[in-house]
Amino acid sequence: MLINISIEKAEKILADQNIEPKTVDVPILDSLDHILAEDIKSDINMPPFDRSSLDGYALRTKDTADASAENPVTLETIDNIRAGYVSKKTVGKGQAVRIMTGAKIPKGADAIIKYEDTVFTDKSVKIFGYVKPNSGIAGAGEDIAMGDTLLGRGKTINPADIGILAILGKEKVKVYRRPKVAVISTGDELININEALKEGKIRNSNAYTIGAQVKKIGSEIKIFGICGDNVLSIKKELDSALQWGDIVITTGGVSLGDADVVKEAFEEVGGKVLFWKVNMKPGSPIAVARYKDKLLFGLSGNPAAAYVTFEKFVRPTILRLSGETEYELTKIKSTLRDEFIKVSGRDRVVRAKTYYKNGGFFTELPDKHSSGILSGLSETNSLFCVPAGTGPYKKGDRIEVELLGY
Amino acid sequence: MLINISIEKAEKILADQNIEPKTVDVPILDSLDHILAEDIKSDINMPPFDRSSLDGYALRTKDTADASAENPVTLETIDNIRAGYVSKKTVGKGQAVRIMTGAKIPKGADAIIKYEDTVFTDKSVKIFGYVKPNSGIAGAGEDIAMGDTLLGRGKTINPADIGILAILGKEKVKVYRRPKVAVISTGDELININEALKEGKIRNSNAYTIGAQVKKIGSEIKIFGICGDNVLSIKKELDSALQWGDIVITTGGVSLGDADVVKEAFEEVGGKVLFWKVNMKPGSPIAVARYKDKLLFGLSGNPAAAYVTFEKFVRPTILRLSGETEYELTKIKSTLRDEFIKVSGRDRVVRAKTYYKNGGFFTELPDKHSSGILSGLSETNSLFCVPAGTGPYKKGDRIEVELLGY
Repeated sequence: MLINISIEKAEKILADQNIEPKTVDVPILDSLDHILAEDIKSDINMPPFDRSSLDGYALRTKDTADASAENPVTLETIDNIRAGYVSKKTVGKGQAVRIMTGAKIPKGADAIIKYEDTVFTDKSVKIFGYVKPNSGIAGAGEDIAMGDTLLGRGKTINPADIGILAILGKEKVKVYRRPKVAVISTGDELININEALKEGKIRNSNAYTIGAQVKKIGSEIKIFGICGDNVLSIKKELDSALQWGDIVITTGGVSLGDADVVKEAFEEVGGKVLFWKVNMKPGSPIAVARYKDKLLFGLSGNPAAAYVTFEKFVRPTILRLSGETEYELTKIKSTLRDEFIKVSGRDRVVRAKTYYKNGGFFTELPDKHSSGILSGLSETNSLFCVPAGTGPYKKGDRIEVELLGY
Repeated sequence: MLINISIEKAEKILADQNIEPKTVDVPILDSLDHILAEDIKSDINMPPFDRSSLDGYALRTKDTADASAENPVTLETIDNIRAGYVSKKTVGKGQAVRIMTGAKIPKGADAIIKYEDTVFTDKSVKIFGYVKPNSGIAGAGEDIAMGDTLLGRGKTINPADIGILAILGKEKVKVYRRPKVAVISTGDELININEALKEGKIRNSNAYTIGAQVKKIGSEIKIFGICGDNVLSIKKELDSALQWGDIVITTGGVSLGDADVVKEAFEEVGGKVLFWKVNMKPGSPIAVARYKDKLLFGLSGNPAAAYVTFEKFVRPTILRLSGETEYELTKIKSTLRDEFIKVSGRDRVVRAKTYYKNGGFFTELPDKHSSGILSGLSETNSLFCVPAGTGPYKKGDRIEVELLGY
């Protein structure tokens, strides 16, 4: 077991866990934002046939060679076809077929002229200029060609991809299953949110903040019970949570004091502790263990510490298990709008509010930095990572910020 | 009915519809990303009492006035309290109480010193320097003060907000209900995704792309049937869709040709057409109608046109009905990586791929611009809006881009 490691080292240990993401077949609409677990090749051409991209007339362009505003050419209309129908006729010399967008180009025709550029009756159409071959025609396979790999394994599925799957006739698609995440709260001071406050007690908020952080990245969440600060009670809840979840998160009980029992409970259920404590502020007390193909995260009971360590360590783990290869937070350059004067021997992860204005990013820092503070997190949408020993930073400094997506 | 209006005018008509968003009480975890429909005031202090922010010893700071490395002060440990418990003792002269993070400060004590800075036995603790009053104490109400408005009506609820609601003991919260969105596909050429292809037919992809676009912004979606290109069939489906949905989207049947029957069907069900056709490319054929407090959007059957008009007109409408005040797409400045040489008399909405690199945004344009193209949308994550008459744009030009969030 490693103790008191750097953020980087902790990230590396987690990235090296090498747990194979699981796959699942889901209806295509449910695959939104999931990672594709198969290559999608096209077995069709799209359009499947040469089709009209206009409402107008299908004609032979050579019939229009001499057409002009002064000397229009009049063609006989021999058929009228809408999308979904196919003309049985062949366009011959001096003939045209009235055609709607999406309909198959009739035999003999080599271009479409749009309604608006003609004068027409039920029986004939006047053309006032030369029509170029292939104009107004979307060729077969122009959009999608048979055999093309349209979507690659590993791609995050967006709405257009779901349209592509639909047009290929796929009702289901193979994606990486998002891990199920169980949350357990520990602490003799905690009561449920529907209980009345008593002296010395506070309501359990961490399970809900973390639950929502998990939901935000699309994983299923289940909030398990509140445990007292004793190994037996935590072990019991861990056993149930491990039955259900792929990842178990606990809060509380991981610092140095008498009540730091989570690490012990992780071992009691058969977990191997990978590391304990990360040299960062907030969030130093964190224990991470592995049990078979499952990971257990023991986060601090302090709201801000739990929040930050979730974003730094749990979020990328959930994303990796969901098949994501880009699991890190988006880093951007921003202009600091406040000063940050603390110089620390530990890496600091400062909660920040970043916004885009006039072509650039700007970052404000909250007034309250304590790891016990919950209220300031409401405005947090980014993290300012201050490496140990750097700073102070002054107003106007260009800094790097990680966006949380909130 | 207005015909052939500008994008701006269409946006204004939609913004002026003045349909009151509906509210609903939901369990707090379900409120994520919804808009708060009530002010959240605190009826508690947080911390509810002065509490320890460290694992250590509660003491009287004046007892440590003369303490130094050479002459440590030894205090008698009279109690041991953990979070969730309250000491019945009062810390007197020369005394200390062992205390865990989160536990209430015992009477008599005015500071906490952390374990690591002491030498202790079961019965006593040695202090090696002066401890400042209030150090190690999180004062009552320091995080949240009774009476504070913590979250205001109109705020988008993030994970931290859900933690705040939990700590206040709220099991449910009032949010704006997201509108339910029905999707109808029209076109004689369309078959269901589970049907085999036949000559002249294509599979229905628009309903799925649009369904996913709706899902992405958190609204409930229901895909209704495919209608033939006739008013009666569309009217029948519209009647069912209006029973269920707050917004109905149709695709196909809105351009100038024979099969443009959607607008007529909107009127048949009692809708008032607000406008028909917007002077833009792609997406010109669009009909929007109002029926009571519901809106009907008739989008083009062309995939790219439907996609773009969804983002420009339907998305902001769904967000407005969800109580969002910031319903516009995020606009950023970007560097164009390709040239765009077309100069058009109509506003153009060009599908684009934008990425962030080395401190700035860059935008690439797809090879295929036709409004019938589906495949290129897979890589689209942004829109480059080219006002009528502007351009050409060259590689390296600074442009404004709207981010789609895909």
